[in-house]
Amino acid sequence: MEKKCIGVDVGGTTVKIGLFEVSGELLKKWEIPTRKEEQGKYILDDVAASILEVLKQEEISLEQICGAGLGVPGPVKKDGYVEVCVNLGWKDRRPSEELSHLLGNIPVLCGNDANVAALGEMWKGGGEGYTDIVMVTLGTGVGGGVILDEKILSGRHGLGGEIGHIHIRDEETEHCNCGGVGCLEQVASATGIAREARRKMASCDQHSVLRAAKEVLTAKDVLDAAKEGDKLALEVMETVGHYLGVALSQIAVTVDPDIFVIGGGVSKAGQFLIDIIERHYKPYVAISQDRAKIGLAKLGNDAGIYGAARMVLN
Amino acid sequence: MEKKCIGVDVGGTTVKIGLFEVSGELLKKWEIPTRKEEQGKYILDDVAASILEVLKQEEISLEQICGAGLGVPGPVKKDGYVEVCVNLGWKDRRPSEELSHLLGNIPVLCGNDANVAALGEMWKGGGEGYTDIVMVTLGTGVGGGVILDEKILSGRHGLGGEIGHIHIRDEETEHCNCGGVGCLEQVASATGIAREARRKMASCDQHSVLRAAKEVLTAKDVLDAAKEGDKLALEVMETVGHYLGVALSQIAVTVDPDIFVIGGGVSKAGQFLIDIIERHYKPYVAISQDRAKIGLAKLGNDAGIYGAARMVLN
Repeated sequence: MEKKCIGVDVGGTTVKIGLFEVSGELLKKWEIPTRKEEQGKYILDDVAASILEVLKQEEISLEQICGAGLGVPGPVKKDGYVEVCVNLGWKDRRPSEELSHLLGNIPVLCGNDANVAALGEMWKGGGEGYTDIVMVTLGTGVGGGVILDEKILSGRHGLGGEIGHIHIRDEETEHCNCGGVGCLEQVASATGIAREARRKMASCDQHSVLRAAKEVLTAKDVLDAAKEGDKLALEVMETVGHYLGVALSQIAVTVDPDIFVIGGGVSKAGQFLIDIIERHYKPYVAISQDRAKIGLAKLGNDAGIYGAARMVLN
Repeated sequence: MEKKCIGVDVGGTTVKIGLFEVSGELLKKWEIPTRKEEQGKYILDDVAASILEVLKQEEISLEQICGAGLGVPGPVKKDGYVEVCVNLGWKDRRPSEELSHLLGNIPVLCGNDANVAALGEMWKGGGEGYTDIVMVTLGTGVGGGVILDEKILSGRHGLGGEIGHIHIRDEETEHCNCGGVGCLEQVASATGIAREARRKMASCDQHSVLRAAKEVLTAKDVLDAAKEGDKLALEVMETVGHYLGVALSQIAVTVDPDIFVIGGGVSKAGQFLIDIIERHYKPYVAISQDRAKIGLAKLGNDAGIYGAARMVLN
């Protein structure tokens, strides 16, 4: 009987868990709540108990599991060490060792959730068939993950793939959550796109459907309006696309992946968004006609469990 | 008897060759001219003949050589394929296979010269003791090399480490040699620094020692004047340092190496230059206190032969 593997994606609210064939077929997926009380001390116990229960139901023994991967929402050192994970309340933990111990010492590997999602997209998503991809997740923030030779680039200080914090805009004056200023996240996240639109409206009298009603303007509003040809919304997206395109070009001449995979809520705008980014990307990778492509992510919220499971197959 | 290895650094004018112990001790180095005529067809023959002659003199047999590395001034694909190398006249070549054939089929690996130099600095230069370094060579142009896990990141389209062509300055209007505009090379190369100073002098009346005489202003003039406290020269170096610092910060949150190693003629300005870069780098890696260091290269023009030799030891 073929071996199976397990992917665990620990979020701030829920933990997603997936049971996979080593071929990548998803056999079962489920969720449990993330108990953050008491510095998140119950999280891994809950995960282990839930996995053991499902395996029992499915009549699968631990011997049939070749390993489990764990994605966590914070920086993870190459050796799996987690100094601090604010979102879970963790400090000074070795979650892979702890979970392995709770699961009869099967191999467990731990990685940053954005990096792990990138590996998932490489395996069975928008980067399937490639070995070197860079994923960019345009959500509330901007996350990223660099996969080289089918492996996560964690970096030497846990900063590998933190491309939301690429400094991209010298003119920016507000501070980013990271403490820096002019980060990609400040303009290309859902929050950033909405802010950019508000700024634009405040700075001019130009007509726009975005001015009509609505208490809270969202990135989706901006993208929908841009697709409908609203001039102001289009200008906002040109600005966003410019900084995204420049950032990808910078990565393309440094890391040079096969493909950039764009995910997150903002990427629901689809090819329309890709086309804008591409227009601002190409002129800055002029050195070669043969360069990294730009495509869409495919796995949505499942990227994390796919990538976590894939981690243990290297 | 311990095995030895050979490093070959093919430049547009001369080929540098080094014979090394596998421990990294340089036993002998020498140069031969680069014969570029007839699409550089004689270059590898010359290299092989020269190596065989020296080995004969030194009474070392090919059996004692564990391999040779070859750095070439152009893009090299991961598998060693060279589509075109303008500087040597090469087209559609597999130099590693060819040189291996000429040297009794010993293992030969080929890489881009800037990437190979970076590996050399990791081995025995400014990056010694580290596994993940990014080298930045500030010369006539700006070259770069990314070393991860002691291996060269060539990239999927031969663009790995082409950090001289990171688009960094939206306001730039002149084109770079690569066809792009606003590349790091345009402001941080020796040529770029001199141009920046000329632009600055043309745009204002500020007093500067740089205005006195001299037909051709060089980057060294600018750096020397800045060290002496010349205000205009200092402002030029602040601009250069800003773009260099930003570029390194962008790489730090993507690739996250142990250290950046700064080499090339401009780096002769030493710690003075590093301090300026560092001041513009730190604010943009605000996300972590623990980040890549910035240091000076140590091997000068020998980095290429060291790195080429090191390639065959992986």
